[in-house]
Amino acid sequence: MMHYSTHDLNDTIVALATPTGVGAIGVIRLSGKQAIEIADQVFPAKKLSEQPTHTLHFGTIRDSENRIIDEVVVSLFKGPKSYTGEDVVEVSCHGSNYIIQQLIQLFIDRGARLAQPGEYTLRAFLNGRMDLSQAEAVADLIASSSEAAHDLALRQMRGGFSDEIQQLRQQLLDFASLIELELDFSEEDVEFANREELHKLVVKIKTLLRSLLQSFQLGNAIKQGVNTVIAGRPNAGKSTLLNALLNEERAIVSDIAGTTRDTIEETLNIEGIQFRIIDTAGIREAQDQIEAIGVEKTMEKIEQSSILVYVFDAANTPPADVRTDLANLYRPGLHLLVVANKMDRNPYAKAKDFLDPTTADQHTWVPVSALNRMNIGYLKELLYQSVVDEKVKLDSTIVSNARHYAALQQAYESLDTVQKGLDSGITSDFIAMDIRRGLAYLGEITGEVSTDDLLGNIFGRFCIGK
Amino acid sequence: MMHYSTHDLNDTIVALATPTGVGAIGVIRLSGKQAIEIADQVFPAKKLSEQPTHTLHFGTIRDSENRIIDEVVVSLFKGPKSYTGEDVVEVSCHGSNYIIQQLIQLFIDRGARLAQPGEYTLRAFLNGRMDLSQAEAVADLIASSSEAAHDLALRQMRGGFSDEIQQLRQQLLDFASLIELELDFSEEDVEFANREELHKLVVKIKTLLRSLLQSFQLGNAIKQGVNTVIAGRPNAGKSTLLNALLNEERAIVSDIAGTTRDTIEETLNIEGIQFRIIDTAGIREAQDQIEAIGVEKTMEKIEQSSILVYVFDAANTPPADVRTDLANLYRPGLHLLVVANKMDRNPYAKAKDFLDPTTADQHTWVPVSALNRMNIGYLKELLYQSVVDEKVKLDSTIVSNARHYAALQQAYESLDTVQKGLDSGITSDFIAMDIRRGLAYLGEITGEVSTDDLLGNIFGRFCIGK
Repeated sequence: MMHYSTHDLNDTIVALATPTGVGAIGVIRLSGKQAIEIADQVFPAKKLSEQPTHTLHFGTIRDSENRIIDEVVVSLFKGPKSYTGEDVVEVSCHGSNYIIQQLIQLFIDRGARLAQPGEYTLRAFLNGRMDLSQAEAVADLIASSSEAAHDLALRQMRGGFSDEIQQLRQQLLDFASLIELELDFSEEDVEFANREELHKLVVKIKTLLRSLLQSFQLGNAIKQGVNTVIAGRPNAGKSTLLNALLNEERAIVSDIAGTTRDTIEETLNIEGIQFRIIDTAGIREAQDQIEAIGVEKTMEKIEQSSILVYVFDAANTPPADVRTDLANLYRPGLHLLVVANKMDRNPYAKAKDFLDPTTADQHTWVPVSALNRMNIGYLKELLYQSVVDEKVKLDSTIVSNARHYAALQQAYESLDTVQKGLDSGITSDFIAMDIRRGLAYLGEITGEVSTDDLLGNIFGRFCIGK
Repeated sequence: MMHYSTHDLNDTIVALATPTGVGAIGVIRLSGKQAIEIADQVFPAKKLSEQPTHTLHFGTIRDSENRIIDEVVVSLFKGPKSYTGEDVVEVSCHGSNYIIQQLIQLFIDRGARLAQPGEYTLRAFLNGRMDLSQAEAVADLIASSSEAAHDLALRQMRGGFSDEIQQLRQQLLDFASLIELELDFSEEDVEFANREELHKLVVKIKTLLRSLLQSFQLGNAIKQGVNTVIAGRPNAGKSTLLNALLNEERAIVSDIAGTTRDTIEETLNIEGIQFRIIDTAGIREAQDQIEAIGVEKTMEKIEQSSILVYVFDAANTPPADVRTDLANLYRPGLHLLVVANKMDRNPYAKAKDFLDPTTADQHTWVPVSALNRMNIGYLKELLYQSVVDEKVKLDSTIVSNARHYAALQQAYESLDTVQKGLDSGITSDFIAMDIRRGLAYLGEITGEVSTDDLLGNIFGRFCIGK
């Protein structure tokens, strides 16, 4: 856990803002009271302190022995109109690790210190350039690798989520004011706040909170991707199905190295939602029967997943085997898609022939022919619907951050206590206390209420340079 | 081999200028006639075409459906005061591969095309912003990982090397003018150029060329590092020696990941020169005798190296074994350092006890105690001297590029032909032809004489985005 004291914030910080590796240029970022002064010491071309903000300057950077380290372009941002709200100098140098190292060392020698992870964004928060949920969205934005995750992070960064929380908080504050006014006049036993109206308001806020809480499953799926297991007996056509699902995808994979497919196993993108396909192939090849392959291992993967795509060969599998597999693989809460493959060879295969009617509500029957790409689009639609509940719209406010979820939940519980208190006619001072508690939880989301530990926890997860 | 037609150069090009990977920001570079126009289409905050050059602008980039892709800072460089000499727009976006990919795609949709490797620097060359040898130095600068390599590339990029070549070329040109003047008056059989003076000048230019050619070995060593093999029998103390050599080094290894030690096996930096230490440890452990271990494998490594550090245990090795090993390992041209290790246990060990006096000129005797760090500094000095010839000074002009070396060599040969022609009293037209040939070779270095193939060859080796 990091701690940020006021002293730290008076320091001028320096870090590489671009990734390490081979590139044409690298950008080193200086921020703080002395940023311009430090840059001026090593950049003889012009006096930066005398230049207007938002200007670019070409010149050389020289070390203490006046040797040239590099020819650079300097970007000058005078506070408060900068990312951090402080004076910021960005140095674009040639993309050599040697040069970058030399420049950072030079700035440290001249009085800057190496930035801690997320410290630029922390300063932006502390200087009022963004609230806490916006700052967190910056990290999400950098990590986003799908359209939906990107849109979600960008919306949060631009304040959409904060607005919603602010509105909720304002309603609670108004409510709290009325209750606390009663406390001031407690000897006179007046009721400024109509209890019935208050009750309605609490219910309304609870409803809003509940809908935000409900959006978390989707938000988390968008942000993290959705773990999806494909399982099935040998020769069920799993690989063909996987290829059929992925093939269209492959066409839009970009030229830029290291974006998606290299890092994660197999990723399927459906309407912007990322499905991480966990193949149980390795297990499958070893043995012949799902029961024998160690249902254990498969179950472990299913345990970490929210969707199971069970594939079987509709032309050659005895219905009893399918029933056994499904009984073994199912667990409550799992979206279970039963894919009857090779329908081209058995076009009359029906759900009722294969499935146990008493567990019909546990699964969705999907007849396909992976080989002929028959119904693959339908399967994708079902995958998408497993995640995107019709109740939660993708363009509504969605909670994607576990910390926000926890705070919202605690706010919800406080409101629940308030409601129960109102029902049981509890005294105003207790009600006021619970409301204050709810306000504090909501305030934690945007950072109106924050502690050093909380900040350390959030910004410590950022990369250095952001 | 790439070809660059005039048509290509009218295109506006786009590429990521920073490395791929995780970072706070990424920089996308647009260059060409339409760079500003294209940026203006997607950056509604301000009309960039109406802004002054060398200014920074904050705003959002929007796609064709007016959806925000990112909040960015745009750097505006109006030609010719830009890296390429054309209009350049650099977009600093959040360092997400998804965003970078979207932005590049957007710029391509609006009329830019993806830049070829080195195309920005090629344009800088074609627009007269730098000559060819300076452009090549940009790639060297990015690749440089030691102080000496960095200094060499920077000096070349800033034109030091070009100046030297220009001066040589000017002298040759003056010479050529005189000779060609004679050709114009050939019927009158006059000699404008005093043959004796000319002879002196040719010798002088040849001397300059020779010293540049001689610097190549050092230049190459600086640029590429020096392959150095450490070999010796088991228990000679190779590992201890390697640690003793590296230990001081380790202390100054930087915090920035991926700079030196991760990528190359073991690297020793002595006064800015990088020695790549090739350990034959794996071989050693398998067997007991150098002869038996497959001198072949060791010899193969020595074949690719310019220095061999042969280590033996001065307290326990029979002199005959040392002589056998040295006879097996030596090849002409190799710098052979014979390290008598464990001198603390046999302080009276002498070269004449161990070495064959008839081959004394093949090696340098270095008594050390790796364990006690005795004489390690001296060994380092000898390693350094093996590379940095006293004849070539590190701060003089040094040739580090194989292409330049070849051109200089051919220029030298042309001059040699001129000299012989003068000696044998050949006619002026032949002499003029040879001088022209020499001029062309020198012109190839700076790019005054260039072909599409040559340019494709040079810039094709750059990374994309530079």
